[in-house]
Amino acid sequence: MLKVGLLGAGRIGWVHAKAITAHGGSTLVAVSDFIPESAQKLAAEYGCEARSTDDIIADPAIDAILIATSTDTHSDLMEKATAAGKAVLCEKPVDLSLERARACQRVVAETGQPVMIGFNRRFDPSFGALKAALDAGEIGKAELLSITSFDPAPPPVAYVKVSGGLFRDMMIHDFDMSQFIMGATPVSLTAAATSIVDPAIGEAGDVDTAVVTMTYADGRIAVIKNSRRAAYGYDQRLEVLGAEGLLQAQNMLENLVVKSTKQGVTGAKPTFFFLERYMPAYTAEWDSFVTAVTKGTAMPVTLQDGVNALAMAEAATLSAKEGKPVRIEDV
Amino acid sequence: MLKVGLLGAGRIGWVHAKAITAHGGSTLVAVSDFIPESAQKLAAEYGCEARSTDDIIADPAIDAILIATSTDTHSDLMEKATAAGKAVLCEKPVDLSLERARACQRVVAETGQPVMIGFNRRFDPSFGALKAALDAGEIGKAELLSITSFDPAPPPVAYVKVSGGLFRDMMIHDFDMSQFIMGATPVSLTAAATSIVDPAIGEAGDVDTAVVTMTYADGRIAVIKNSRRAAYGYDQRLEVLGAEGLLQAQNMLENLVVKSTKQGVTGAKPTFFFLERYMPAYTAEWDSFVTAVTKGTAMPVTLQDGVNALAMAEAATLSAKEGKPVRIEDV
Amino acid sequence: MLKVGLLGAGRIGWVHAKAITAHGGSTLVAVSDFIPESAQKLAAEYGCEARSTDDIIADPAIDAILIATSTDTHSDLMEKATAAGKAVLCEKPVDLSLERARACQRVVAETGQPVMIGFNRRFDPSFGALKAALDAGEIGKAELLSITSFDPAPPPVAYVKVSGGLFRDMMIHDFDMSQFIMGATPVSLTAAATSIVDPAIGEAGDVDTAVVTMTYADGRIAVIKNSRRAAYGYDQRLEVLGAEGLLQAQNMLENLVVKSTKQGVTGAKPTFFFLERYMPAYTAEWDSFVTAVTKGTAMPVTLQDGVNALAMAEAATLSAKEGKPVRIEDV
Amino acid sequence: MLKVGLLGAGRIGWVHAKAITAHGGSTLVAVSDFIPESAQKLAAEYGCEARSTDDIIADPAIDAILIATSTDTHSDLMEKATAAGKAVLCEKPVDLSLERARACQRVVAETGQPVMIGFNRRFDPSFGALKAALDAGEIGKAELLSITSFDPAPPPVAYVKVSGGLFRDMMIHDFDMSQFIMGATPVSLTAAATSIVDPAIGEAGDVDTAVVTMTYADGRIAVIKNSRRAAYGYDQRLEVLGAEGLLQAQNMLENLVVKSTKQGVTGAKPTFFFLERYMPAYTAEWDSFVTAVTKGTAMPVTLQDGVNALAMAEAATLSAKEGKPVRIEDV
Repeated sequence: MLKVGLLGAGRIGWVHAKAITAHGGSTLVAVSDFIPESAQKLAAEYGCEARSTDDIIADPAIDAILIATSTDTHSDLMEKATAAGKAVLCEKPVDLSLERARACQRVVAETGQPVMIGFNRRFDPSFGALKAALDAGEIGKAELLSITSFDPAPPPVAYVKVSGGLFRDMMIHDFDMSQFIMGATPVSLTAAATSIVDPAIGEAGDVDTAVVTMTYADGRIAVIKNSRRAAYGYDQRLEVLGAEGLLQAQNMLENLVVKSTKQGVTGAKPTFFFLERYMPAYTAEWDSFVTAVTKGTAMPVTLQDGVNALAMAEAATLSAKEGKPVRIEDV
Repeated sequence: MLKVGLLGAGRIGWVHAKAITAHGGSTLVAVSDFIPESAQKLAAEYGCEARSTDDIIADPAIDAILIATSTDTHSDLMEKATAAGKAVLCEKPVDLSLERARACQRVVAETGQPVMIGFNRRFDPSFGALKAALDAGEIGKAELLSITSFDPAPPPVAYVKVSGGLFRDMMIHDFDMSQFIMGATPVSLTAAATSIVDPAIGEAGDVDTAVVTMTYADGRIAVIKNSRRAAYGYDQRLEVLGAEGLLQAQNMLENLVVKSTKQGVTGAKPTFFFLERYMPAYTAEWDSFVTAVTKGTAMPVTLQDGVNALAMAEAATLSAKEGKPVRIEDV
Repeated sequence: MLKVGLLGAGRIGWVHAKAITAHGGSTLVAVSDFIPESAQKLAAEYGCEARSTDDIIADPAIDAILIATSTDTHSDLMEKATAAGKAVLCEKPVDLSLERARACQRVVAETGQPVMIGFNRRFDPSFGALKAALDAGEIGKAELLSITSFDPAPPPVAYVKVSGGLFRDMMIHDFDMSQFIMGATPVSLTAAATSIVDPAIGEAGDVDTAVVTMTYADGRIAVIKNSRRAAYGYDQRLEVLGAEGLLQAQNMLENLVVKSTKQGVTGAKPTFFFLERYMPAYTAEWDSFVTAVTKGTAMPVTLQDGVNALAMAEAATLSAKEGKPVRIEDV
Repeated sequence: MLKVGLLGAGRIGWVHAKAITAHGGSTLVAVSDFIPESAQKLAAEYGCEARSTDDIIADPAIDAILIATSTDTHSDLMEKATAAGKAVLCEKPVDLSLERARACQRVVAETGQPVMIGFNRRFDPSFGALKAALDAGEIGKAELLSITSFDPAPPPVAYVKVSGGLFRDMMIHDFDMSQFIMGATPVSLTAAATSIVDPAIGEAGDVDTAVVTMTYADGRIAVIKNSRRAAYGYDQRLEVLGAEGLLQAQNMLENLVVKSTKQGVTGAKPTFFFLERYMPAYTAEWDSFVTAVTKGTAMPVTLQDGVNALAMAEAATLSAKEGKPVRIEDV
């Protein structure tokens, strides 16, 4: 039974608390939050203790730490937790600073402790089935990957300002998905971006709509489209063109009902947002972490993956700003 | 070049005139109608002569007669046209009277002339592809056939009164489709019917909604659903469950556009009615007739098929009236 | 906190144990089974006691009994449990004997205890959404209901022999669904049935493929299709034609991946069977039971509903045997 | 009755000959081809004369010229035909040289004769319906356009060498579609391109897979994906994200049959290529030309549109070569 300490009792902390407690091989021992009441509330709901972060990390009875705090604390906490001999699952992104993330990676590597980055979408059953079909050669060699990833509505501008920007905060998931599907990082990328959804986002120095095109050493191409607003719900599609066919992952709809009237043939909307769409993925993510820690096998998503995704986000941020292609090795 | 005389210049006559003139192997020589102006109008549009029915049948320069007149004249005209040595394509149904249809069949048989009944849906590309897949064994042995066939809106009550009733006028197409798919006629059937769409149809002695269940000698079952009203357009679906799978023919939609909004994910309605849905089928039907006549091969839909479908309609009419199963051999 | 005793530790007992323990408002206190080891195994997994059925029913600390035993014990156990002052959720069908079920209903009524019958499909989110849309008038007045309900593979013949037959064992769900959607029971019905999937089922006196057509007092019609085998998975579709449109509940697929190759455009199969498809429905069913018991509100599915569904099954069995329509009031 | 001379009797010439002769308001008078036998064959089929190009252009009895010759002759022929007072429908692209196309545009402008460029896809019913829905405000203001346009198989390398390259030969259609949907030309674009489908295409100096991202003055973005190979058929999809929703045009499938087996749920492939997919669009294109010429109204696709599309192709060619964004005003 893996004994787990949870750092962070915000929305995503609750998601993880549910997965940890529902899992047959893990127990939630303690939770911390910089707002003590938040930690107490979660602790009450899931039957664990509310303690301080330092206390949790220092507790020799705790085997693993799940970091679900704000991004600016990720690197510090990964370093402390691994130094204390814990296995770590850290939420994305690794850091807003690529330099800091790389430094963290070096520090963590010296401890030899296993660290996994929480790119939950890799554990979505449909993306997993698509990846398996691709790896099985069902459409031949991949040539062109397209990812469509639209949020239902933009976050508050206050959040946007501290988010690190669309590329580090939102597209980071898609950058990871691209390396998951393609099995490689691109050589270079070009970003086109705009704040057409909400001018206030532009005034805050960020964008809300972006297209990034990435090219790979072997000639493959990937394109990622992001928008902060899809009025019809969470749009999470992915398709790969290969030498012998096309694989697509379609949207999950709210239900299976179709209505035909004079107005047309209408099915349900896509599920609203990530909690509705990806809860099974969070559960599977946690299971894969428990399995890897327990069996001592390789982490399914590594800190290197997290640093790579952040490098792509850094390159895209630069490309959008300067209006030219950026080589990944140059960031 | 097959020289053709067309009897009947109503709506379906125009459909056939278009197919005859567009076909590279046939020429429309003449058309007749009991309203002379109707014949003249069609003749002017398609560049042929408007003549009397008797004159057309007697013309030795005409090879084939297409009968698109009112149902009560079909048997007489088939007899006369075959007696005059013509090949005949006659619109469905053969007759409203099963007895008269059988008598016609005997008279026609003595002439040895080829006669085809216009069950156009057999020539619909999707139904044809489904039949081909079934015959190729793609889902194993057929076990259960379901036909959904809804018109967009009920016809005028005046038409209903002379139509012979829903089973002979509308479901006749589905009875034929059942023998096309199943390759057999049923042993017995049971009909449930109601005039829930429009009470005036019930007052006129007919029904507007009906379900017929048919059983076959080898244990297979087929069910046909008809309604005179589908607010969303012409609903023409068919599915066969077999030992190894299911084959479905879905509706043809007006276009390929899908709109996703807060209200859901909406595609186009089905095409409005038979002219929109089955025009390619009429064209293919005519081509198969020309080919069979020209090459002297067997008719793809025989007068026997037409009589069989009428027998099913007769049995269904009786079953709905008496509220009990009826054996086909008893009608 | 509702304290629950579970009778029956078979496959469906495990499903309910999971729902009971996961629910925030109920606790699983004890389980019994006629095979003591089965009860012990379930008890160990879910942290409750394995006890005798009589002991559980007699325990004053237990509020509610969930009956998940073999069908032949349902009536007796409902009578005993309600006599002991328990609220009861009993699996379908009520009984194999309509007479016994009606007797049970009278006995239970005298106790005044609330009893719910486990027609889980009413709690499926898609069927629920369809029902809500219908009740909201989105397609006008219902006219024609069609239910397609195919199991992936037939059960062992040994099971078939004690099952009460397809109508009482399998179609019972669809009979209940018909009254859920239509809000009424039919006046009469006609069944056509065959053992085309497996002759051994026919030799055992049962059928494996059946179509039942039901007519209602107000002219509406419903048709139910059942097959014990759908090679492609669990086929659970439902559609209602109304005056202003059509509502359909489509199949749940295993995932959202679509592959396009030379062979066509292929999506995933339907989910395999009821555990995959209806687990959320079992969870929602239990929640509705807990709510009704706790708040003292009406049961969402009553014993009367269970008796009605059984009467339809009885009528269908008779109709299939005698080859004629049967009035529900005559069984 | 519009009297038409057709220049070019290749594959696309036959497509137009069929549309011209089938139209009630136009007659095909003569056809020319640099291979006289080709012109004679088409003339025999469609009942017109085979004459020389000069002769056709000089014939005062001819009202309109349809140019379906090789691209390098388009500009010369447009100039000659308009100088001779003819209305012109010219196949895409206007020219391989943007400079030559602009010169042609000036010459033609002086004649005042109406010229239409054959961007047939604008007349596809589904793209038309999508455009109408967008213009009607059904998804609010457009923000992000995506065009997926894959051919079924690459052309022979010999053709590739004289084609002007993927951007001028293939993506030219999508550049036009982008201005049709967006109602504007982009400010700048970036192209990523590769010859991953067939290295021989790369050796011939061309690419076979490309992604072009375009940005507009008002902040909108468009992305076009092209591949010379889609093993499953002609992939022609388009989607627009707007402030209130998403509009998609999906692929046209070969038929409406769906097969469910252990292997999944399989529908038909997309139609094979442009003749299967766009024949109705060619017919509608011709009708719109006849209407515009006959009524003296504005051409639905102008020579300016053709020059704009060519400018985008030129910019994309340059961007792919130099690996940087290119402003449209700079080409």
